[in-house]
Amino acid sequence: MADLRDDDVTPEAVRARHAFAGRFTGADLRALAIDADPGAYAGNVERLFGAIQLPLGLAGPLRLNGEHARGEFLVPLATTEGTLVASYNRGMKAIAECGGARVRVTKNEIYSSFTLVAGSAAAVEALRDWIEAHQPLIAQTVAGVTRHGTYLRSECTPWGFRLVVNLVYDPAEAMGINMITDASFAVAGLLAGRHPGTDVHFPSAFQADKKATFYGFHRGRGRSVTADVTISAAVLEGTLRSSADAILRYHLNNVDTARVLGGQGFNMHVANGVTALALATGQDPAYVGESANANLIVEAAAGGLYFSLGIPSLYVGTVGGGTGLPTARPCLQMLGCSGKGSALKLAEIFAGTCLAGEISVLAAIASKRFVAAHNRLGRNRPAGP
Amino acid sequence: MADLRDDDVTPEAVRARHAFAGRFTGADLRALAIDADPGAYAGNVERLFGAIQLPLGLAGPLRLNGEHARGEFLVPLATTEGTLVASYNRGMKAIAECGGARVRVTKNEIYSSFTLVAGSAAAVEALRDWIEAHQPLIAQTVAGVTRHGTYLRSECTPWGFRLVVNLVYDPAEAMGINMITDASFAVAGLLAGRHPGTDVHFPSAFQADKKATFYGFHRGRGRSVTADVTISAAVLEGTLRSSADAILRYHLNNVDTARVLGGQGFNMHVANGVTALALATGQDPAYVGESANANLIVEAAAGGLYFSLGIPSLYVGTVGGGTGLPTARPCLQMLGCSGKGSALKLAEIFAGTCLAGEISVLAAIASKRFVAAHNRLGRNRPAGP
Amino acid sequence: MADLRDDDVTPEAVRARHAFAGRFTGADLRALAIDADPGAYAGNVERLFGAIQLPLGLAGPLRLNGEHARGEFLVPLATTEGTLVASYNRGMKAIAECGGARVRVTKNEIYSSFTLVAGSAAAVEALRDWIEAHQPLIAQTVAGVTRHGTYLRSECTPWGFRLVVNLVYDPAEAMGINMITDASFAVAGLLAGRHPGTDVHFPSAFQADKKATFYGFHRGRGRSVTADVTISAAVLEGTLRSSADAILRYHLNNVDTARVLGGQGFNMHVANGVTALALATGQDPAYVGESANANLIVEAAAGGLYFSLGIPSLYVGTVGGGTGLPTARPCLQMLGCSGKGSALKLAEIFAGTCLAGEISVLAAIASKRFVAAHNRLGRNRPAGP
Amino acid sequence: MADLRDDDVTPEAVRARHAFAGRFTGADLRALAIDADPGAYAGNVERLFGAIQLPLGLAGPLRLNGEHARGEFLVPLATTEGTLVASYNRGMKAIAECGGARVRVTKNEIYSSFTLVAGSAAAVEALRDWIEAHQPLIAQTVAGVTRHGTYLRSECTPWGFRLVVNLVYDPAEAMGINMITDASFAVAGLLAGRHPGTDVHFPSAFQADKKATFYGFHRGRGRSVTADVTISAAVLEGTLRSSADAILRYHLNNVDTARVLGGQGFNMHVANGVTALALATGQDPAYVGESANANLIVEAAAGGLYFSLGIPSLYVGTVGGGTGLPTARPCLQMLGCSGKGSALKLAEIFAGTCLAGEISVLAAIASKRFVAAHNRLGRNRPAGP
Repeated sequence: MADLRDDDVTPEAVRARHAFAGRFTGADLRALAIDADPGAYAGNVERLFGAIQLPLGLAGPLRLNGEHARGEFLVPLATTEGTLVASYNRGMKAIAECGGARVRVTKNEIYSSFTLVAGSAAAVEALRDWIEAHQPLIAQTVAGVTRHGTYLRSECTPWGFRLVVNLVYDPAEAMGINMITDASFAVAGLLAGRHPGTDVHFPSAFQADKKATFYGFHRGRGRSVTADVTISAAVLEGTLRSSADAILRYHLNNVDTARVLGGQGFNMHVANGVTALALATGQDPAYVGESANANLIVEAAAGGLYFSLGIPSLYVGTVGGGTGLPTARPCLQMLGCSGKGSALKLAEIFAGTCLAGEISVLAAIASKRFVAAHNRLGRNRPAGP
Repeated sequence: MADLRDDDVTPEAVRARHAFAGRFTGADLRALAIDADPGAYAGNVERLFGAIQLPLGLAGPLRLNGEHARGEFLVPLATTEGTLVASYNRGMKAIAECGGARVRVTKNEIYSSFTLVAGSAAAVEALRDWIEAHQPLIAQTVAGVTRHGTYLRSECTPWGFRLVVNLVYDPAEAMGINMITDASFAVAGLLAGRHPGTDVHFPSAFQADKKATFYGFHRGRGRSVTADVTISAAVLEGTLRSSADAILRYHLNNVDTARVLGGQGFNMHVANGVTALALATGQDPAYVGESANANLIVEAAAGGLYFSLGIPSLYVGTVGGGTGLPTARPCLQMLGCSGKGSALKLAEIFAGTCLAGEISVLAAIASKRFVAAHNRLGRNRPAGP
Repeated sequence: MADLRDDDVTPEAVRARHAFAGRFTGADLRALAIDADPGAYAGNVERLFGAIQLPLGLAGPLRLNGEHARGEFLVPLATTEGTLVASYNRGMKAIAECGGARVRVTKNEIYSSFTLVAGSAAAVEALRDWIEAHQPLIAQTVAGVTRHGTYLRSECTPWGFRLVVNLVYDPAEAMGINMITDASFAVAGLLAGRHPGTDVHFPSAFQADKKATFYGFHRGRGRSVTADVTISAAVLEGTLRSSADAILRYHLNNVDTARVLGGQGFNMHVANGVTALALATGQDPAYVGESANANLIVEAAAGGLYFSLGIPSLYVGTVGGGTGLPTARPCLQMLGCSGKGSALKLAEIFAGTCLAGEISVLAAIASKRFVAAHNRLGRNRPAGP
Repeated sequence: MADLRDDDVTPEAVRARHAFAGRFTGADLRALAIDADPGAYAGNVERLFGAIQLPLGLAGPLRLNGEHARGEFLVPLATTEGTLVASYNRGMKAIAECGGARVRVTKNEIYSSFTLVAGSAAAVEALRDWIEAHQPLIAQTVAGVTRHGTYLRSECTPWGFRLVVNLVYDPAEAMGINMITDASFAVAGLLAGRHPGTDVHFPSAFQADKKATFYGFHRGRGRSVTADVTISAAVLEGTLRSSADAILRYHLNNVDTARVLGGQGFNMHVANGVTALALATGQDPAYVGESANANLIVEAAAGGLYFSLGIPSLYVGTVGGGTGLPTARPCLQMLGCSGKGSALKLAEIFAGTCLAGEISVLAAIASKRFVAAHNRLGRNRPAGP
């Protein structure tokens, strides 16, 4: 082990680590062995010794009327939570029966921030003025780091003798956090170089990356997306075996009582849909804490119920990160997500998928068949008399 | 497709769905095909049509001085974020060089709640009194639903004409949310049966499941765990190539400025460690939003720095859910996590792993080599001039 | 001025300051002169030079069915916000017509905390153990500082190398924050004396005094009180000129949309009632930020609407602070608040008063006559064409 | 009583109510009697029956280097909390010895919002488009309601079948909430009239008036003000009898531990200064919950400590509300606050005053003489052996 570089992903290196782990722990690790070429994982992991497999369920078709995502989509969901795929699938069926969901990207910005430490409040103001006066130079510095995406602007927040600088960026088809992190590191270096005596704390906690904060919830970070649909009474009662009254009553009880919990918005289980679709399509599931801070609105509509879901901070991309992995690429292909505009298309598919999950679970719960469905399908529980 | 039951996981059914998805989308889905017996996924997924693979990196040995986890552990991390495994591994090396981290489970309770809707405030009080007077009957009802775990108590919160009932449960080796959900559904049924005219909203939003809320952060849900260690100046400068001063200064800047963001506690990137270890060991990654609400404390210590991490709401188990999956089982075996006490042992390993990640990333950032490391190891970025 | 002690409240000193302020600023300060003996303000203010006057409106009778407050109360409200007294009075009329409001004190504890700084986590644990083992000594130390109130317990929260110690206290008839602050200072001194090398940060920010925090909202600090009542349809339509439907619809819209604001609970304008009654009765109005973190629940009831208000953190007393002031004393007498149990009685009157204000303003708004009433009564506006 | 109009403030009416209250309660209410003409309170209170008196302490001179407030100010503080005036006065002395504090108004906007209820999401979009297209008509409607202040813009937030409309307004010298409330009521009426079938919920909970919310804290409502100053080591040790080290250590401990409480920003006791100055100058003290959500920053500076205080949501004015009261007017005159620009001048004085209070209490606490000072000056405590 000691003589292997962390980033060596040759079959020999992987086998050596796999063998070492088996010897060290005494565990039978054969199921973790990688059959194919481990080189496919270069750059995505270090000290590679094996792989895990997660099952994929097929949900849909999901019918969407988006700006980027239009038509019918079969959605791959990677999960081990029994009933999840069946539930999302049922919600997609209901949406399709009602003509599809409207989906929209309302914001498309990624942030990275750092803190400049100066020796006085006046020096902080001078730094801010310099940044505002040198936007072209900053844009050029960003462009020197990455060819993808577009620098948009710098946001400066004075904090005592410190200046928090937030770089705002359109990441194009990438999720973008790595690009913008690199770029803002370069900009921080530029600023420190031009202002001797200025220290840099990089990144800043203001970035709030992968954190659930009100700041991020209100600003929106990454892609902000919405999805809405009106489900007719017939579909509520047929496909969803519930009723407008039961669902609305349950939802109002939820938003009434949840207001003392100190959360950010309210939804049923957006975390589930975001996680399952993120795993399938090579997104970073560590962002689910931010992405699941979604807000669900339900309204009594003429002849049914109107559902509207807003996800302010969704982190998805179709290039970079885990999107090139052997199993992620086909999942993105299933959704037609490649090329220009595909990241926004993917974001719209996430929104529609999560909306389907909200509708389905609300109907199941409101009609009191929640646990019954869980028990019939989810057999792998430890429990059961 | 239409003639297949959602829960049919025979090879024929899986192949049929796989073929249908390929035809429908025109995508090449061969990389998603399941080579082994798909029956292994029965109960964990519906409409099964394939599988994804995620690479596993090997971190450690992680040296722990816990009540349940004692000794050295090789930790499998499933991730596609380049540099993550290398960084956690470096943190574990530093911890080992300093004698290991102390890890403790400080709370072990899982909750499930429902709302009883009565017709008056007096009826709500009567329901609460009845519940308090019938604890043995409730415990018996819970025991009739599951043989695992132990019912602890009911917590009643009156809310107008509604009573929010929170069942508290020790889930033994399971993560427990499904068991306690089933049990509280049965108890809700018992209560509704004994009190005609009482409606039930199940579950209650008070459960705050998979949500980042102050309520959950302060109560702690699931396993509450802590990990702490003192890293010597020599290790800070050697293995971690940083210094106590630089790390402390950066950390203090973070907690000073992050206080206006409206988050819950502060940590660097616990979301990363929780997600990667959860994926490897068959835990539900959709909980990361709650589990990553962790709080990191750094203190100047004699001869180095003291780091203490608290994770109030960690959801892990060693039976049920995804823990029996073909690739999850070996990962749990690597960690020696089976049998009585293994869930608490796993919780302690999570805490130690996340502590290692905090220490490593703080050192890397404070010494300004964060992006440099990212670039050397993380080759799969879309960016790059 | 320079030769006067800050706490000199003799008529000569007050006149001297009054004259100095008039000369220095060139303003006509005659209306601020104190006619009566300024000695009445000794201990409540330094550098005394005058007084302000605020008008008192008479609301009620407020009919209460409390444990401590039973019967009819005329409530003095000090305010300069036109329509406020008329609105609260109308709510009290509605409550009385429906038999009075039920009011209860559900918690009665005041907190003061300090931080002990030790040199290691082990030292922190030793401090905690010492505190737990020396409860009688701590109680005795508290008793040596104040004869009022009762020490209840110490709550210890380890924080790295620091221990946050929270003293919990029943303040009897006082609001109590000064007593418990003195007492916890003495206890901090005791602890520092017995543990050389331990530094003290006093008070701790954990005290969250006069701050609106989720921590305080969930714990409740000071007196926690509730008030509820069912208003009949006849009174909703007669006295309140509104309807159950209109009020409930408006309320549900509020709680539905307010959930994204990041507040703590929801109410209409409890801040107004708390402030006006606090000013009349000599309470500290600087606590309104905490006290107004109240939660209002509205339910459709048979034949009307049920209103329930919870105020978790109310700071009131009938001795000490400003309660002995010449104009505060008569206001407390009006409410029969003197002697044993009077602080809890006053707390119940606060709850009932605020409930009246919620009902009245909800009805006014729901019936769209909010601004109309404002304009007819509130003549002192700068605006108006 | 029954034959008196609520708004009758003739001496006869006031005496009749005073007598009635005395008879009804059996209390001696002579100290509440109004000596002067009660007509001065017309429009500020209903059912007037008396008045309370609060003592005024004299703090300062406070030296300010503001855009609107420049020079030395004697600040009247109305309080009954012993030591408060002495402490603020000491802070002002320290500030003056260091050349004065810089104060700035960074934002000057007041909000009022209402909800339009439409029958569909499309109708909501149509309403928003109509509002955007009819800005001149809306501005004209606002101008028809009030001659003061200036309409700035409308902010529209779709929420299901509802549109939350936020009117933004520069209130000139008024605090402004009543004006903007009237104006937005008129605009709501205009919108409802032009769009039959649209219901109005007015005001909207989004207004967050008098509430402590993250939404309000981040947006800033009313006047946003800042104050900062560098206090030299000599003054820290002389006037403030503390040290830079002790203060900084205490402050860092506070911000480190307070981060789990769920508050908004952090400060020591801004609530005290805001309340005391608001009472003196005729502002509405019910706003203290919002106004006290202030954020204090402390930095080690060359030769001392730098203190910076930000108050995002301060509600002050120099016309309307209680500012015309007999005792408020002279207090405003003391501060030179009349005429154009006086509201912003007053806002800057609030910021400087609160900064003085923060510095003084930090120094007192850090040097452990907090309770000692309280005991020497604050004699009116119930406690004390």
